Amino acid sequence: MTSPAKLRKDKEIIAEYETQVKEIRGQLAEQLKCLDQQCELRAQLLQDLQDFFRKKAEIETEYSRNLEKLAERFLAKMRSTKDHQYRKEQSVLSPVSCWNLLLSQVKREGRDHATLSELYLNNIIPRFTQVSDDSGRLFKKSKEMGLQLQEDLLKVLNELYTVMKAYHMYNTDSLNAESKLKDAEKQEEKMGRSPDALSGVRLEERHIRRSSVKKMEKMKEKRQAKYTENRLKAMKARNEYLLALEATNCCVFKYYIHDLSDLIDCCDLGYHASLNRALRTYLSAEFDAQTSRHIGLESMESAADSLEASGDKQRLMESCNSVFCPPVRFDFQPHMGDTVGQVYSQPPLQGDLLQRSQQLHTRLSTLRIENEEVKKTMEATLLTVQDMVSVEDYDVSDCFHHAGSMESLKSVASESFMSKPSLAKRRANQQETEQFYFTKLKEFLEGRSLITKLQAKHELIRRTLGESQKTECCIASARMNSAARLQDRGRPVPLVVESCIRFITRHGLRHEGIFRVSGSQVEVKTLSGDPNDHEMDSIAGVLKLYFRGLDHALFPKEVFHDLISCVCECVPCQTQRS
Amino acid sequence: MTSPAKLRKDKEIIAEYETQVKEIRGQLAEQLKCLDQQCELRAQLLQDLQDFFRKKAEIETEYSRNLEKLAERFLAKMRSTKDHQYRKEQSVLSPVSCWNLLLSQVKREGRDHATLSELYLNNIIPRFTQVSDDSGRLFKKSKEMGLQLQEDLLKVLNELYTVMKAYHMYNTDSLNAESKLKDAEKQEEKMGRSPDALSGVRLEERHIRRSSVKKMEKMKEKRQAKYTENRLKAMKARNEYLLALEATNCCVFKYYIHDLSDLIDCCDLGYHASLNRALRTYLSAEFDAQTSRHIGLESMESAADSLEASGDKQRLMESCNSVFCPPVRFDFQPHMGDTVGQVYSQPPLQGDLLQRSQQLHTRLSTLRIENEEVKKTMEATLLTVQDMVSVEDYDVSDCFHHAGSMESLKSVASESFMSKPSLAKRRANQQETEQFYFTKLKEFLEGRSLITKLQAKHELIRRTLGESQKTECCIASARMNSAARLQDRGRPVPLVVESCIRFITRHGLRHEGIFRVSGSQVEVKTLSGDPNDHEMDSIAGVLKLYFRGLDHALFPKEVFHDLISCVCECVPCQTQRS
Repeated sequence: MTSPAKLRKDKEIIAEYETQVKEIRGQLAEQLKCLDQQCELRAQLLQDLQDFFRKKAEIETEYSRNLEKLAERFLAKMRSTKDHQYRKEQSVLSPVSCWNLLLSQVKREGRDHATLSELYLNNIIPRFTQVSDDSGRLFKKSKEMGLQLQEDLLKVLNELYTVMKAYHMYNTDSLNAESKLKDAEKQEEKMGRSPDALSGVRLEERHIRRSSVKKMEKMKEKRQAKYTENRLKAMKARNEYLLALEATNCCVFKYYIHDLSDLIDCCDLGYHASLNRALRTYLSAEFDAQTSRHIGLESMESAADSLEASGDKQRLMESCNSVFCPPVRFDFQPHMGDTVGQVYSQPPLQGDLLQRSQQLHTRLSTLRIENEEVKKTMEATLLTVQDMVSVEDYDVSDCFHHAGSMESLKSVASESFMSKPSLAKRRANQQETEQFYFTKLKEFLEGRSLITKLQAKHELIRRTLGESQKTECCIASARMNSAARLQDRGRPVPLVVESCIRFITRHGLRHEGIFRVSGSQVEVKTLSGDPNDHEMDSIAGVLKLYFRGLDHALFPKEVFHDLISCVCECVPCQTQRS
Repeated sequence: MTSPAKLRKDKEIIAEYETQVKEIRGQLAEQLKCLDQQCELRAQLLQDLQDFFRKKAEIETEYSRNLEKLAERFLAKMRSTKDHQYRKEQSVLSPVSCWNLLLSQVKREGRDHATLSELYLNNIIPRFTQVSDDSGRLFKKSKEMGLQLQEDLLKVLNELYTVMKAYHMYNTDSLNAESKLKDAEKQEEKMGRSPDALSGVRLEERHIRRSSVKKMEKMKEKRQAKYTENRLKAMKARNEYLLALEATNCCVFKYYIHDLSDLIDCCDLGYHASLNRALRTYLSAEFDAQTSRHIGLESMESAADSLEASGDKQRLMESCNSVFCPPVRFDFQPHMGDTVGQVYSQPPLQGDLLQRSQQLHTRLSTLRIENEEVKKTMEATLLTVQDMVSVEDYDVSDCFHHAGSMESLKSVASESFMSKPSLAKRRANQQETEQFYFTKLKEFLEGRSLITKLQAKHELIRRTLGESQKTECCIASARMNSAARLQDRGRPVPLVVESCIRFITRHGLRHEGIFRVSGSQVEVKTLSGDPNDHEMDSIAGVLKLYFRGLDHALFPKEVFHDLISCVCECVPCQTQRS
């Protein structure tokens, strides 16, 4: 109860309190400083973001301009070329359409990057500016609120100080009263002991003593009352102190646990959401640019897939129709009124012709077998060349795996395709194979020329020998017609039509899919198939192309619908027939 | 048979033939010219492609450099800031990590564009160079082959000419022989008629005549033989002519239908496939760059999604632990050895306290109802503000629909977000709502402060009145302990721990999920829920944060495994208990 450590005086306690309050004050100041610093860093971050996007907008604009300039340079070149018309015809060729798509892709990218730049400047940066404004304003308001809260807290601490001082004062009073009471009690005790001990004392003295005892008792009573009063006051003051203590602790606790948290929430109000929206705008822009780019790349991909030789060949021949159109057939010109227009196969020439036919047959058989061998070798070589030129060596995704440094990246990029020794070897190999292919092709073509010539003669002889029984007159009249047609110089049937129809009617009317299968497309696939099929389809293709390429449609537009309805009526019959 | 039109002479026929051959020769020359032109255009296209990619590589390099410079500028700034340490602490905040990702995204883009540039230069351009080389070589070889084929064709035409001339010659001879034979026959006829008419002629004369008839007959025979011979020769020549005609027509046909097609195929050999590979390399590079960019954007997207105020608040308070740490509790300081450390609630103070408790209760009820109203208004306002700042206005995909021109594009971009009147209105509205929120918040905080203070006192009084029956001695001893601990200045239990544990043990031990629910995360969700729940979790969160932030782990590493195994043994019991 009276351990010396407990006997603490006002000053000591006050000093301790003040140390504690000073610590709190220090923390409060630090808290505001911390918020200030947050505000400053936030403002700095938002400023950096704005600077960043401003600079990035510049970069995007420059990039965009360069891309558009690049596309425009080549597009202008394409437009201004002197053989513009020819270029236009060229544009139907698949590599040219790839080139056009490549240029429009670059143009599209340029436009998209311009859009990005514009969005940075007119949407994203203003958003950050707004976030910055809002954030600054909220910090200011929150700080004001924080100061108010701190002021309130200090008021509470001050109240504690006041009631503590009151407690000290009243307790001191109470203690003083107590000690005075004790003094009185001690004195009384002293006096009380003496009456018994000094019973033989003078009555007068006794009387004086008795009055002094009474006085003493009165004083004791007075002091007791004083003490009781002061003790009550001290108790009240202590109660107030204890209540204030509880209130203070709760308020401090509330401030640290709730108010500070609410304060920071106030500073952050909307900050993260607005930042999120600004970043989402950026992401939306980037993703949209990506989508746009992807669409362009996909159409380029399908154009690259449509790179095809045979289609281009057809288009080229179509565009230079007059150059590739088969010429007028050489017809028999009867000399000085010669009336016989066919091979004479009666005796005495019959024997010779028969023998000749036999010889041609033998020679042709040998030639065909030989040329078929050459053809097989040639085609196998061609397949090898085709395999070589279509090796799938275009995947460069390795170059975009950013695991390593830039150095390792470069080595990957250069190794994939351009690795010198293997490339040179491959190219040499390819050219060698190509050379071999050409040798074989030449051999084959020479063989084919000879076979064509001999076969034509052989077939004519055979036909003549077979037909020699038939009446000559009908043939003569046919020849007459043919000759008459030749005379007609403003010939209404074009030569290409005549040539093709002649071939097809002679050899192809029973050919499956005639006029329905594209010759050139099949050509690629059936290179090792039956050559006659491919031949027939090619010729039919040439004929179709001719009709398709006419300036004036073969069937005039005026009668098109009549024709179609006519065909529709006829088709069921045809289907039945076939 | 003798129609005048048919009586055509050599010269006429030859002239016609020559016209026809001249036309063919013209076509043949044109065909080679056409191939030359194709070759030239192809070379031009490949040159354009190389130039294009060379220039594009430059553009990409420049773009890449600019992007890397941009990223580096801000990264360097971040590194060199004087408050580097502080920045480092900041980097855990969600907006800063977004900023870091943004910079690394730009860096990544820069690197990817550098890779693109490199692939253009070291892979794609060399491919086009190769295609160009191959194409030129093949054109040259094909042209040689074409010339050979044309030469062969002209040889065939020349053969036709030769046999036609022979036919003309032999036919002329045959015609001559025929006419001579006819002369002889005429003479013979004349003579034959005379012997009958001149039967009375002299014998001598008859003899002479007979010998002349014989002579005549001999001549006729001779002429007949000559004619037969010549006729046979002419027929043979005609046969040869007809055969050559057939052969020529077939060869011409073959050349136009097959050889030309094969020739074009030869020129194209591998061209489309190689071009396809070069373009596919470009596409692979672009698609890979897209993928890389997409990955970066996606991680930015998730970072933007993680932008969160409460997490940042926790991190901030953690990083400034000493500033936000609740201070030492104010404890009762017994004055001059005062032994009573609690509110005195016996008579005569009991009545006062009871009355005061009653008054506080009434006052608190009113205050709580009032403040709850303020809180509801404040929270509703906060929700409005939050709705305002999280409006989903960030979709800019309209700007990338390239249907219209650049002009219409611009208007779309500026309308979406930055449209001035609506923006200004929205911002004014937002600030007004924000202002109202602050007013209400201030009101609420003032109310809360007062309630906290009064409630603390009220609860203490109530507790005291309720506990006044209990023995004082035990309380006194508790106080003693507390005081003793206060004396101990090198206090081993930190204040934050004491504060939080005090609060939790007093109010929260039966709180569901204590120490398991993150206070701040819940805080957002339960803003309109039971405030006590959120309070408790927040306080538990502060305590957890404190332990987590210790320099030396609360449980030293050395004993970690022992502790874990100990916990594992204990858990089943705990689970049973709960």
